[in-house]
Amino acid sequence: MPGKPTLDFWFEFASTYSYPAALRIGALARQRGVSLRWRPFLLGPVFKAQGWHNSPFNIYPAKGRYMWRDLERICDGLRIPFVRPTVFPQNTILASRVALVALAEAWGEQFCRAVYAAEFGEGRDIGLPETVVAVLAALGQDADVVIEQAQTDENKIRLRRNTEEAQALGIFGAPSFVAADGELFWGNDRLDAAIEWARR
Amino acid sequence: MPGKPTLDFWFEFASTYSYPAALRIGALARQRGVSLRWRPFLLGPVFKAQGWHNSPFNIYPAKGRYMWRDLERICDGLRIPFVRPTVFPQNTILASRVALVALAEAWGEQFCRAVYAAEFGEGRDIGLPETVVAVLAALGQDADVVIEQAQTDENKIRLRRNTEEAQALGIFGAPSFVAADGELFWGNDRLDAAIEWARR
Repeated sequence: MPGKPTLDFWFEFASTYSYPAALRIGALARQRGVSLRWRPFLLGPVFKAQGWHNSPFNIYPAKGRYMWRDLERICDGLRIPFVRPTVFPQNTILASRVALVALAEAWGEQFCRAVYAAEFGEGRDIGLPETVVAVLAALGQDADVVIEQAQTDENKIRLRRNTEEAQALGIFGAPSFVAADGELFWGNDRLDAAIEWARR
Repeated sequence: MPGKPTLDFWFEFASTYSYPAALRIGALARQRGVSLRWRPFLLGPVFKAQGWHNSPFNIYPAKGRYMWRDLERICDGLRIPFVRPTVFPQNTILASRVALVALAEAWGEQFCRAVYAAEFGEGRDIGLPETVVAVLAALGQDADVVIEQAQTDENKIRLRRNTEEAQALGIFGAPSFVAADGELFWGNDRLDAAIEWARR
């Protein structure tokens, strides 16, 4: 008997299109019987390897203008709130490290969704430690304890390894989805195709 | 009584994702009661304005590898043939000029679909004049007469104007779709959303 199909969800908190993906992937995967692994990574090193020292949406203004409008339309369609943050892209290192701690426990998905909702649903700056603290507090977590765990060398290395693994998998943007056979899908608009691929 | 909704379909023959869009947009628009304008333009000047002197799929290899695989999956899903052309991107100036002549007559859509089918369905080089001639001949057109019309200064200027208009509309890639109110959609995966927007 084959095991339950699995799918790795590679996301970066600074990634705009990861926001709608993060908000809908959990329910969709459960509905379709796919077991999900949330894999935070950093786009910075990936972009630097492509010669970009900023978000491509800032480097290419026409593309950036379009993306914000497109994201607004997508959020409207999904009936999820959207507020364009004044800071973009945001520093996501602390939030990503905390996500790794959270994902080793039962509240990982909830934390990741809450970070995205703060950033793109309310326009807050998740690069500020106080925003991460507020998200943790709202989830009933002891922020001091969690952040101490997040800032250990061991955990920092874990995030770096995730980023290296993402690059080795051929990932060049977020969100990305990788099936057990290595098949790669990129973009919120490939989420459904990725789930179906995992179920084949 | 409001008129029939309209949508402009901006395409470039060198654009990979324009291939599935071009093959399905005609039937979809007719089905949904949307009147379509086929608008060929050149991506070269648009990319140069963004600092690219080649296709981004060649400049960024990880993105390029992904795109070819993604396109293959999309064509599989639509049950349309796909053969990766050895030449990429292709020189599309002659084919685009001929498209403008064809689109002023009744066989424009048919010609555009045939060019895309030759390039990405059979892997042929549409940059070779003999490929354009063969496509014209297969449609029962007098290739010599059509190409002479295509190469007039007036027609060359028309293509240049299309490209300038595309840039003025905020277009930065292909395929793009622009509704009568100026709303812009980019990519084969936004085709359905663009059709629905036009019908609002």
